Amino acid sequence: MAQKTNSGRFFEDFTLGETITHATPRTVTTGDQSLYTALYGTRFAVNSSAEFACGLGLDQAPIDDLLVFHIVFGKTVPDVSLNAVANLGYAGGRFGVPVFPGDTLATTSTVIGLKPNANGQTGVVWVRSTGTNQHGQMVLDYVRWVMVRRRAPGTDIAATHNCPPTDISATVATADLVVPQGLDARGFDLALSGEPHCFEDYQPGERIDHVDGMTIEEAEHMLATRLYQNTAKVHFNQMEAGQNRFGRRLIYGGHIISMARALSFNGLANVVRIAAINGGSHANPTFAGDTIHAWSEVLSAEPMPGRGDLGALRLRLIAVKNRAAADWPLKDSDGKYLSDVVLDLDYTVLMPRRG
Amino acid sequence: MAQKTNSGRFFEDFTLGETITHATPRTVTTGDQSLYTALYGTRFAVNSSAEFACGLGLDQAPIDDLLVFHIVFGKTVPDVSLNAVANLGYAGGRFGVPVFPGDTLATTSTVIGLKPNANGQTGVVWVRSTGTNQHGQMVLDYVRWVMVRRRAPGTDIAATHNCPPTDISATVATADLVVPQGLDARGFDLALSGEPHCFEDYQPGERIDHVDGMTIEEAEHMLATRLYQNTAKVHFNQMEAGQNRFGRRLIYGGHIISMARALSFNGLANVVRIAAINGGSHANPTFAGDTIHAWSEVLSAEPMPGRGDLGALRLRLIAVKNRAAADWPLKDSDGKYLSDVVLDLDYTVLMPRRG
Amino acid sequence: MAQKTNSGRFFEDFTLGETITHATPRTVTTGDQSLYTALYGTRFAVNSSAEFACGLGLDQAPIDDLLVFHIVFGKTVPDVSLNAVANLGYAGGRFGVPVFPGDTLATTSTVIGLKPNANGQTGVVWVRSTGTNQHGQMVLDYVRWVMVRRRAPGTDIAATHNCPPTDISATVATADLVVPQGLDARGFDLALSGEPHCFEDYQPGERIDHVDGMTIEEAEHMLATRLYQNTAKVHFNQMEAGQNRFGRRLIYGGHIISMARALSFNGLANVVRIAAINGGSHANPTFAGDTIHAWSEVLSAEPMPGRGDLGALRLRLIAVKNRAAADWPLKDSDGKYLSDVVLDLDYTVLMPRRG
Repeated sequence: MAQKTNSGRFFEDFTLGETITHATPRTVTTGDQSLYTALYGTRFAVNSSAEFACGLGLDQAPIDDLLVFHIVFGKTVPDVSLNAVANLGYAGGRFGVPVFPGDTLATTSTVIGLKPNANGQTGVVWVRSTGTNQHGQMVLDYVRWVMVRRRAPGTDIAATHNCPPTDISATVATADLVVPQGLDARGFDLALSGEPHCFEDYQPGERIDHVDGMTIEEAEHMLATRLYQNTAKVHFNQMEAGQNRFGRRLIYGGHIISMARALSFNGLANVVRIAAINGGSHANPTFAGDTIHAWSEVLSAEPMPGRGDLGALRLRLIAVKNRAAADWPLKDSDGKYLSDVVLDLDYTVLMPRRG
Repeated sequence: MAQKTNSGRFFEDFTLGETITHATPRTVTTGDQSLYTALYGTRFAVNSSAEFACGLGLDQAPIDDLLVFHIVFGKTVPDVSLNAVANLGYAGGRFGVPVFPGDTLATTSTVIGLKPNANGQTGVVWVRSTGTNQHGQMVLDYVRWVMVRRRAPGTDIAATHNCPPTDISATVATADLVVPQGLDARGFDLALSGEPHCFEDYQPGERIDHVDGMTIEEAEHMLATRLYQNTAKVHFNQMEAGQNRFGRRLIYGGHIISMARALSFNGLANVVRIAAINGGSHANPTFAGDTIHAWSEVLSAEPMPGRGDLGALRLRLIAVKNRAAADWPLKDSDGKYLSDVVLDLDYTVLMPRRG
Repeated sequence: MAQKTNSGRFFEDFTLGETITHATPRTVTTGDQSLYTALYGTRFAVNSSAEFACGLGLDQAPIDDLLVFHIVFGKTVPDVSLNAVANLGYAGGRFGVPVFPGDTLATTSTVIGLKPNANGQTGVVWVRSTGTNQHGQMVLDYVRWVMVRRRAPGTDIAATHNCPPTDISATVATADLVVPQGLDARGFDLALSGEPHCFEDYQPGERIDHVDGMTIEEAEHMLATRLYQNTAKVHFNQMEAGQNRFGRRLIYGGHIISMARALSFNGLANVVRIAAINGGSHANPTFAGDTIHAWSEVLSAEPMPGRGDLGALRLRLIAVKNRAAADWPLKDSDGKYLSDVVLDLDYTVLMPRRG
């Protein structure tokens, strides 16, 4: 009669090169998309309207890209980050075929790097996680790294567990971005999508204050995180959280990404899809009651090779808590994130060209 | 490099007769209806059961009429009321073809009246908004008027901006009410719908205390308002709301309409559909923590021309906060709404006849 | 002009042997399942993934068994328990054909027992409630008994109202458990479902601490209870609840069942379906802010007659509030439930055999 519950992996339990099949395949439905809309108020036309999506050559409205991200990510938690101390970063995230209602998502991860920390208490684990649909097609592929507790703190660690990854390409090259099959943005209706700004209207270095703010509620971040079947303990249990150094439940970082991205509609309404997540950092924790504002900076603007309907905008999305974003809050003079900066996300979107 | 964010229209930005195509078309799904049920606990059989709806000659269960109203309405906010000081009223609202899961809704508005206020700070804008489905069929058509901030307060205003509407028919005539094609209420099952009362059982002047009460939560009104993709700032941002005269986020008035309507099931269970919204006033603001009760008065009862299965009941629905509705709270001796009255809605429903 | 609102039945209003057709048939959708996932974070693979369900011979992913329970149960509230003082127990609950998105559920109840209480204030009503789908097939059949207020407290009661049930089989016999048609668990994928433990790995007497905890929010339990169209007044109205002995809204007991069951995934991940609810008791009330933990005990393990792919595990699921479950909290030395025990549920699941 074995111990039945999953207590999660510790640093020593990971093996370089191993592939982990994560549990809980999930059929994504219009119900999930409705909840996502209710949680963030997202308004991107491609995801909101089947008619709009069909006008671009798609069969129906694709599921919001970040909802796909959260579902693919959530599956990795019980195996990768149940004993994580910190979610350190993302890199090289590439969205593949779009996900439509009725598709079933599953995730596998490969361990691509291990590095013990000098304190002997923790180590860093790098995984490449791949979400696929029921046809085995890649829907999302990304690297993340987390700091995980040691099973035997303070003991020596084998050389097999000291092998950081040598080559992580954080930024997905424009040529590697996936445009959904059949998509043709020439029919993009700027009146229905909400803003007149096309690819050509955005310049590297340009900053956009997304103006609006949204306050986090306990019920909402828990509904969201459970919708993603993300089981990280710190989000749900106030009895335990009351004992942590904040005395509060921590908000899933992905909830902040989705809030900031929904706020970014105001200034970036015409995004056709998120094509890549090049990197990301949850600079500070957030809690229920915090109000989130966001601003963006255009990092680069490149035409998509071989096509005149779409360009790739690489964007930096910054979210802050309990202050406005009008003065572009980011880092202090020492290069350290300000205490009210909560997200620094580097991602790439497809934007229609004026044609 | 233009300003990218939408700061909304001011009074001077509206032109009499212009038509505004609102952004964010929306495919309505069973997921939206599920959320609507969870938010209000609505139990009207036609919207709850495909079998029941098919028994009346419909192809499936139509989306709740007020969910349609909120979605159509929400699209107008970024163009019409982002700089609104107050939502002054509704009139002449007529529901057209029913909306089924999978239909895509879009909204256009025509400016039908403009009137500057004497204080020079604001003006009133009247619009007729029309929601249509993917076939271009009208699903809802209504007039609302809002008080909007002036772009240049205190300056003179052109004659083009002083043209109030001459003719708004608030009450939709019975002959103009739309009965969904194929609907035949003769098979209406009173056991499954929940009450024995038919059209003939309601008398003008009759009042119904709906008895039950429901408390508003922050997470719930925000989920609802975002589900409708209504972006009015006052509902979501506690950091800003903390500076207003209430120190609180304001509840979207439509959330109260839907709460009161769901409460009205107890006494009006057999409503087949809402056919018209003749007028409405949000008499006082509501906040999270308020408990809503409701009562109704039958204003008129008219047979539907040419059919024996349905009658039209014109109803007045009053919602109150933090008190019971048993003593019919409404106005004081000066004709002013009591401070705990929060909704006064005049609407018309189709009710099955005893046959 | 009759009183229009439903004030519910009192003890004297029930007649032995009568069958009550409950109102509000409900078409269950993927939207309902999405909300259920968001409310509890449930991860059982059969309900989460159409692909997984199809791999077991089903046509699609069935709706979560407890969501079916709550919807079938909710319909009985306006007729059976609107004037209930206490929900005393469940017995003999048997799940029938699985429910798939698009199915329409309705409920009828037969009064099978009546017993006045000596205090003259209340009586106990036993009903057998049956949920059916649109084909008239049984989806759930169970007995519950509630303590209901007397219409005329203190008066004599007729012999017709003193006839407790003679024979309630609480525990559903293994031979009576329903296995969904076409289901073949031989293809059950233990990697995708989340744990390696099969029927053979569970021993009678074994206890499992499900480790995780979840805090209840007002918005969440109200969303859930309204999703089930359960209208019991005590859950929604803080204005009235402020006057009760707790000063709080009470949580629907079924919300706790679903929370505890979702927590039980950690240790019981491979459950194919809930086949029976043999009994249950809501030992103490719960309120928003309470944190729920759960533990299980295996009561029996029996092979399913005539098949090698499935076994029946009878389980006891205990939920506690504001304490961990590691020390198996249950009853005190007098056999009385500890004050922090909130659920004691006896149910039977189908579990895949190692084959």
